[in-house]
Amino acid sequence: MNVFESVESEVRSYSRGWPVVFDRGTGSWLYDEDGNAYLDFFAGAGALNYGHNNPVLKHALVDYIMRDGVTHSLDMQTVAKRDFLETFTDVVLGQRNLDYKIMFPGPAGANAVEAALKLARKVTGRESIINFTNAFHGMTLGALSVTGNSMKRGGAGIPLVHATPMPYDNYLDGKVEDFLWFERLLEDSGSGLNEPAAVIVETVQGEGGINVARDEWLRGLADLCKRHDILLIVDDVQMGCGRTGPFFSFESAGITPDIVCLSKSIGGYGLPLALTLFRPDLDIWEPGEHNGTFRGINPAFVASTEALRTYWRDDKLEKSTLAKGEQVERVMTELAQVHPGTPMFAKGRGLARGLSFETGELATKVCRAAFDRGLLMETSGPDGEVAKVMPPLTVTDEELADGLDRLTAAVNQVCA
Amino acid sequence: MNVFESVESEVRSYSRGWPVVFDRGTGSWLYDEDGNAYLDFFAGAGALNYGHNNPVLKHALVDYIMRDGVTHSLDMQTVAKRDFLETFTDVVLGQRNLDYKIMFPGPAGANAVEAALKLARKVTGRESIINFTNAFHGMTLGALSVTGNSMKRGGAGIPLVHATPMPYDNYLDGKVEDFLWFERLLEDSGSGLNEPAAVIVETVQGEGGINVARDEWLRGLADLCKRHDILLIVDDVQMGCGRTGPFFSFESAGITPDIVCLSKSIGGYGLPLALTLFRPDLDIWEPGEHNGTFRGINPAFVASTEALRTYWRDDKLEKSTLAKGEQVERVMTELAQVHPGTPMFAKGRGLARGLSFETGELATKVCRAAFDRGLLMETSGPDGEVAKVMPPLTVTDEELADGLDRLTAAVNQVCA
Amino acid sequence: MNVFESVESEVRSYSRGWPVVFDRGTGSWLYDEDGNAYLDFFAGAGALNYGHNNPVLKHALVDYIMRDGVTHSLDMQTVAKRDFLETFTDVVLGQRNLDYKIMFPGPAGANAVEAALKLARKVTGRESIINFTNAFHGMTLGALSVTGNSMKRGGAGIPLVHATPMPYDNYLDGKVEDFLWFERLLEDSGSGLNEPAAVIVETVQGEGGINVARDEWLRGLADLCKRHDILLIVDDVQMGCGRTGPFFSFESAGITPDIVCLSKSIGGYGLPLALTLFRPDLDIWEPGEHNGTFRGINPAFVASTEALRTYWRDDKLEKSTLAKGEQVERVMTELAQVHPGTPMFAKGRGLARGLSFETGELATKVCRAAFDRGLLMETSGPDGEVAKVMPPLTVTDEELADGLDRLTAAVNQVCA
Amino acid sequence: MNVFESVESEVRSYSRGWPVVFDRGTGSWLYDEDGNAYLDFFAGAGALNYGHNNPVLKHALVDYIMRDGVTHSLDMQTVAKRDFLETFTDVVLGQRNLDYKIMFPGPAGANAVEAALKLARKVTGRESIINFTNAFHGMTLGALSVTGNSMKRGGAGIPLVHATPMPYDNYLDGKVEDFLWFERLLEDSGSGLNEPAAVIVETVQGEGGINVARDEWLRGLADLCKRHDILLIVDDVQMGCGRTGPFFSFESAGITPDIVCLSKSIGGYGLPLALTLFRPDLDIWEPGEHNGTFRGINPAFVASTEALRTYWRDDKLEKSTLAKGEQVERVMTELAQVHPGTPMFAKGRGLARGLSFETGELATKVCRAAFDRGLLMETSGPDGEVAKVMPPLTVTDEELADGLDRLTAAVNQVCA
Repeated sequence: MNVFESVESEVRSYSRGWPVVFDRGTGSWLYDEDGNAYLDFFAGAGALNYGHNNPVLKHALVDYIMRDGVTHSLDMQTVAKRDFLETFTDVVLGQRNLDYKIMFPGPAGANAVEAALKLARKVTGRESIINFTNAFHGMTLGALSVTGNSMKRGGAGIPLVHATPMPYDNYLDGKVEDFLWFERLLEDSGSGLNEPAAVIVETVQGEGGINVARDEWLRGLADLCKRHDILLIVDDVQMGCGRTGPFFSFESAGITPDIVCLSKSIGGYGLPLALTLFRPDLDIWEPGEHNGTFRGINPAFVASTEALRTYWRDDKLEKSTLAKGEQVERVMTELAQVHPGTPMFAKGRGLARGLSFETGELATKVCRAAFDRGLLMETSGPDGEVAKVMPPLTVTDEELADGLDRLTAAVNQVCA
Repeated sequence: MNVFESVESEVRSYSRGWPVVFDRGTGSWLYDEDGNAYLDFFAGAGALNYGHNNPVLKHALVDYIMRDGVTHSLDMQTVAKRDFLETFTDVVLGQRNLDYKIMFPGPAGANAVEAALKLARKVTGRESIINFTNAFHGMTLGALSVTGNSMKRGGAGIPLVHATPMPYDNYLDGKVEDFLWFERLLEDSGSGLNEPAAVIVETVQGEGGINVARDEWLRGLADLCKRHDILLIVDDVQMGCGRTGPFFSFESAGITPDIVCLSKSIGGYGLPLALTLFRPDLDIWEPGEHNGTFRGINPAFVASTEALRTYWRDDKLEKSTLAKGEQVERVMTELAQVHPGTPMFAKGRGLARGLSFETGELATKVCRAAFDRGLLMETSGPDGEVAKVMPPLTVTDEELADGLDRLTAAVNQVCA
Repeated sequence: MNVFESVESEVRSYSRGWPVVFDRGTGSWLYDEDGNAYLDFFAGAGALNYGHNNPVLKHALVDYIMRDGVTHSLDMQTVAKRDFLETFTDVVLGQRNLDYKIMFPGPAGANAVEAALKLARKVTGRESIINFTNAFHGMTLGALSVTGNSMKRGGAGIPLVHATPMPYDNYLDGKVEDFLWFERLLEDSGSGLNEPAAVIVETVQGEGGINVARDEWLRGLADLCKRHDILLIVDDVQMGCGRTGPFFSFESAGITPDIVCLSKSIGGYGLPLALTLFRPDLDIWEPGEHNGTFRGINPAFVASTEALRTYWRDDKLEKSTLAKGEQVERVMTELAQVHPGTPMFAKGRGLARGLSFETGELATKVCRAAFDRGLLMETSGPDGEVAKVMPPLTVTDEELADGLDRLTAAVNQVCA
Repeated sequence: MNVFESVESEVRSYSRGWPVVFDRGTGSWLYDEDGNAYLDFFAGAGALNYGHNNPVLKHALVDYIMRDGVTHSLDMQTVAKRDFLETFTDVVLGQRNLDYKIMFPGPAGANAVEAALKLARKVTGRESIINFTNAFHGMTLGALSVTGNSMKRGGAGIPLVHATPMPYDNYLDGKVEDFLWFERLLEDSGSGLNEPAAVIVETVQGEGGINVARDEWLRGLADLCKRHDILLIVDDVQMGCGRTGPFFSFESAGITPDIVCLSKSIGGYGLPLALTLFRPDLDIWEPGEHNGTFRGINPAFVASTEALRTYWRDDKLEKSTLAKGEQVERVMTELAQVHPGTPMFAKGRGLARGLSFETGELATKVCRAAFDRGLLMETSGPDGEVAKVMPPLTVTDEELADGLDRLTAAVNQVCA
C-alpha cells in the first residue's frame, strides 16, 4: 500500500481510475513521476480552461509572489483585488451590458451556490428552491440539497429538504411540453408546491451527463421566472468562463439571470476563486452576514485578471472553442456511425462534450482504454454512462486531433 | 465611490474598518499602496500563523511553480500531495501517537466541518448535533447550523435545525457544574433531546470572543462523549496549527477527538487547504461520496509541507508561542489595572488573546485607535466586545513589543 | 354581534356562509332555531352518510347510554369495541377478502393519516412521502404537509417538507402519459427525488374539487408502488364508507392498498372515530408508540357497528348510491347544456358530485342561491370553483329530486 | 387469541395491563363483562373528571339526543354550541377576568396544541418553540415535536425539529437557579438558540411523572416570556378542568397565559372536545385556515355545558379536590415512611398524584397488585417509575378511602 491508500480516506475517487502519481503539468499535458505524458481532456473538471500552468498567467503569478504582493486578505481592499474588479467589470460585464454586483462568497463553487441560495431566500422571504433533474451544485449542505445524485445526497445523513426537482430540458424525451408541469404547479394554489424563492439551473449539466438545455428552453425558463416573481440563478461554475464558447454559457440564449455563480476557471490558474453575481437591487446583505477565510486569495485575483485580459478582450477564444467543439462532435458522431452495434450518441456544446453509451460500464471501459493510451477522460451522468471530453480551451489543433485519435482508438477497442 | 464601494457587494466587512488598499505583505507587516506599514495582529483570522509571504515557504512555492509542478489535481495522486501526506503523518500525527485517516474535503474550514458532520451522521445513523454557545464553524448551510451568531444564522433564510446548543465552559459563570444539564438530558429518555450523532467544539472560541475551555472541561466533555457513544469533533480550524502553542489545540487537555477539522494556517502561505481527520474505523465513505473541485491545490501542499518541516520538527515554535502569549496577557492585565474606571479583562491562550470590554463600542474604538497607530486588530464576541490579538506566531519579540505598545496607546486613548 | 362573532375565533368558516343557528337534524334535514328546514347536501363534509340522527343508530346509541355502557376507554378492551371489531372484520373486511390489522389512531381523519405516515416511515426507514396535487389530508402538521392548499399550508408557520407533489389523474389534461414523470424520477438515481416511503392518495379528491381518479390510473399507481417498493396509502376518510358506492372507494379499481385511512362516516352518527388499516406484516408498532385520549369512544363504536349491520350486510346501499349518483350527474349535465353561456361541467363518482364553474365566484353564488332556497351545499377546489353535492347516502328519491330542483333553480338564477 | 389480539394493532397498550373486557361504568367504577367492579383511579387519563356516565350530564345528553338535537355541525352555529359558548364565557372566563377568544381546533388535545403552535408561529413570524423536559403534548407531528418521550418521538420516522427543550422546574434538583440557562441563551445573540415563537408548558406534567411546577417558577416563566416577547402557551389538556383544584391549573400562580389548550374533561362525559383559547389580539386567523371535521360535536357541547353549570358555579368542587388531594398525599407519605427499605416519595397537586419509586419495575408491580385488588392505576414518568393516582374529582370520600386502602395493600405486598 502506498501512502495514498494507507493514509488518505476511502472517499478519494479520481486516483482510483488513474493510478499514477502526477508531477508536472503544462498546457494540455500532465506528466507522471516517471515522465509519462498524458493528454488531459478532463481539465480539472473545468477548472483549467486555460490549461495547466499557462505561461502567461504563470508569469504574472510569479511576479506577484516575488514582489511580496499580499497573498491572503479576506475581504480587505487590495491592489490585486481592485485590478480584478476593474478588469472583470470592464472586460466581462461591461462588454455584455450586464449590471451585476460582485460578491466573493468563499473559495469554491459550492460557496457561490450557498451564497446565491441564501440571498434568494433573504430577498424573497421564501425557503423553497426549484432545481432540476441531474443537477450538480456542490457538496456543502445547501448546495447538496439542490443536487440530484442520490449517492451524494445520501452522504448528507439528514433528509435534504426545501428543494423540489423539475424536469430538465428533454428529460421526458420531448413527450411533454416545456414547463407544462412546473407552470401548472405554480398557477394552482392547491398544487402543494411551496412557493419557490428561486430556480437554480445549469445551462449544460456537466456532472449530470453533459445534458444541454436549448436556448429556447432557457428563455422559457427565464420568462416563467419573471412571470411568477421567482429569482433565476444560473450556476455557471463549470460551464462559465468560456467552456461553451462565450464567457457566460447563457449568452447564446439571450437571457439575464438574476444571480450567477462562477468558480472553477475564473481563478485562471487552478487556484480557488468564486464569485456570486447579482442584480444590484438584490444586494441587501448586511456587512459580514456571509463571510469566509478564503474569499480573498490575491494570487488567484492576479491570475484571473491576467486571464481575462489575455483571453477575453476579443472573441478569438470563443470562436476557437466553438470550432473545436464542432470537431469533437464530428468525431463522436462518426464513432457512433462506425459502431451501429454499440448504440452511442454525441452530446454537448462548445468544448463540453460527451459520448453517451447505454451503460456506465461501457463508458468506463472507454475511459480506461483512453487512459491506457495516455488520454485523461472521465465519465459523468447518473449511471456514469457518458464519456466526457473537456479539454482545456487552449488545446491546440494538433493536440485536439491527437486526443480524438486516442479516443477513437479507445472506442474501437471497446466496441470491437 | 471607489470600485470596491460601487461594484463589490454590501456584504464586505473588514474593508470598512480598514479603509486603505493593501498592496504588499511580509512577515508581521502589511503595506498599503501608499507605502504605509501596518503591524498585522489579525493574521488572516488565523490563516497566517507563519506570517505574510514567509520567505522559506515562498522559496519552495516559487520553485514548485517555476518547475511547472502540477497546480490543480482534485483528488488525483501527485508528488506534492504524497510529500504532504508523508510529512503530515510523520511530523504531526506520528510524533503525537495519533492514528487518523486524512480527508481533503475542499478548500476551506467550512468544508472540513461539513465533511465531519456528514461522516458523523453516516457513521451513527443519527441526525442531531450538539454545538456550543458562541460557536463559529462556518457559513455553508451545514456549518452555519452549528454556529451561534444570530445575525449570521439569520442569513440562511431557512430555519436552521438538527443542532442544539449547550453551554460552553464557564458560560454560566461557574454557577453550574460542568455538563450537569447536558448529561441529564442524555440520561433522561424523556428529555426531548434528539440523540446526538456528535458534539462539535472549539477548544478556544475565536470568533465567539476568545473564550477558553479549561483542559478539565475538555476532558469531561470527551469522557461524556465516550460514555454516551457520541462522536467528538474538535474544530481546530482557527486554533490548530500552533495558535495556542502545540500543533493541535487539544493536546494540553490530553484528549483524542474522534474527528478533527483543520484549515486556515495548515496551507502555510495563506493558500486554501483543509483537512478532516478521523479515526480509521470511521472511514466508511464511499468513493466520491463527498468531493469538490479545489480539494487538491498543490501549491498549498508544497507550502504546507515546507511549514511543517520548518516549524514542527521541534518544539521551538510551541514554546515561543506560549511565552509570547504570556507577554500579551501581562500587558493586557496591566491595562486593566491601569484603567479601573473602564472594566476590562484579559482572556485567551497561546497567541489567541482578547481584551474583553463591557460593550462592543469600546472594543471597536480600541481597534480604531489601534488602526490609527498602524496596528491591525479586530473585535470578536457576540457583541464585538473583545479586542482580539492574534499576531503571526512568527512575530519577533520586537514586533510584539511594538504592537503591544500601540495597543497600550490605543487603550489609553479610548479610556482617557 | 352575537356570541359566535364576539367570542369565537375568526377561523370559523361554514358559519359565515350559513348565518343561521341550527337546532335539530333528522335524516337529510337540518332545522334552525326558528323552525326553518334545510335540505342538507353537505352531510357533515362526508361524516353523515347515514343522515342526521339516523333513527336505527340512535336507538342503539341511546340504549347503550341508558344502560351505562362505558363511554370513554382509550385502548382498553370493551364489549362495544369487541362488537365493532368483530362486525367490521366480518361485514367489511371478510366479505372483501381484505386482511388488515386495525389501529385506532385517535378520533379524527387527521389522526388516521398521521398514524399511516408514521408507520410507513417506520417500516421503510425513509422520510419522504409522495402526495398529489390538490390533495387534502388534514390540518395537523404531518397531515398538512401532504395537503395541497396553499392557504392552509401557510397556516403551519414553518416550511412543510418531506413531501413532493405528483400530478393527480388528468391534472395535465391528458397531455402527459400517466406516471411518466413520477416513474422517470424513481428510475433515475440522479433525479434528486428523495426515495419515498409511501404514496398517499384519495381516489376522489373531495376538498380538491371532486376530482376523480380513473380505475386504470389507480391500478397504474398501485403497480408503480409495487415495482418500486413504495407503500400505497389510500386516504378513504371522505370517500370511504360508501360515498362512491362500494364501502371502500378503491374497490372498483380492484387494488389493495397497503394502508387505508378511515374516519368521518365510520362513526355512523357523526361521532368521532378513525381507523388506520394495514397489512398485518406492517404491524411493527411498539405498544403505546402512538396513542391518544379519544381513540376509544364507545358510543361511536356502538353507532358504527349498528350502521355496518344495517347498511353493509348486502349491496342495497351501494346500488342505491350509484343510481342516485347518476341522477345527480344527469341533472348537472343538463344544467350545463341549458346554460352554454356559463361554461360548467359535472364531475364526480357515486354521491360525491360537483358542478365545476370557471370561477370560485360563480360557484359561491350558486351555493348562496341554493341556501336561499333551503339547500345546503359547499364549494370545493383550489379556487372554490366547484359546487359540491354530497347528500347523505340515505337521502330518499323524493329528497334527492327536491334538492336537485333547488340546485337547478339556484343555477338558473345565477346564470340568468 | 381473542379478537383484540388477532385483529387490533400491536400498538395497543392499556389493554395489556388490564386484560379484562369492560362493559359498564358509573361514577368511579368500571365493570367488566363478568360483573367484576373496578375502582377507577385512572379516569380516562384525565378525561373523566366527573366520573363515568355522570347521571346529571347523562340526563342532558340523552334529552338532547332524544329530541334530535343536531349532532355533528363542524363550525356551523348551533343552539348547543351557543349555549356552550355563553356558559363557558360566563362561568369560566368571566369569573376569572380572563379575556380569551375561543377556537374549536378539532376533537382532541393534540388538535388544541397543533392550533396553538400554528397561531404562535403565525403571530410572531418565528418557527422555534421552547418545550420542557418530560413534556407530553400529543402524538400528531406538531404536538409530538414538543413532546419529550424518546420512544414516542422515534415513532415519527422523521427528525423532529423546531423545538428546544429547557429544564422543567426542579429538573436539576435545585442546583441551578430558575431560568439561568434559558435566559442566558435568550440574552446572548451568539447563543445559537433560534429565537422562539412560544414556550409551551404544563403546570403539572402528567405523563412526564406528575412533576409539579411551583407557582413562583411559573411566574418566573411568564415574566421571562413577557420580557423577551415570547408567547406563553399553557397546555392544560390534562391538568385543566379542575384536576389540580381550580378550573385552570395556572390560577394559583396568578399568571395569564397568552394561549391555553383544553381538552380531555372539557367534554364532561368523555366525549371528544378541545379548545384553544387566546388573547383577542392574537386572533389573526384567516377563515378556514385551520379546520377539521369533528370540531363541532354537539353532544359534547351539551355535556360540557351541563358540567360547567353543575360543578363550576361555586367553589365546592375546587375545595373538595384540594382536600382529597391532601388525603392522597398523606397516605402516600405514610407509605414512604412505612417502607424505608424501598425509597419512594409522594408528588403532585390536587387530584393529580403520584408515588415515585426508584424504578419502573416497582411502579409497574404496584399497579399490577392494585389491579389484582380491583383498583385501576397507571404508571407515568420517563421510565414508568411513578404510580399515578388520578381518580374522578367526583370520587366520594368512601371511594377515595377504599381506593387508598387498596393502594396501601398493593404497596405493602410489593415492598414486603
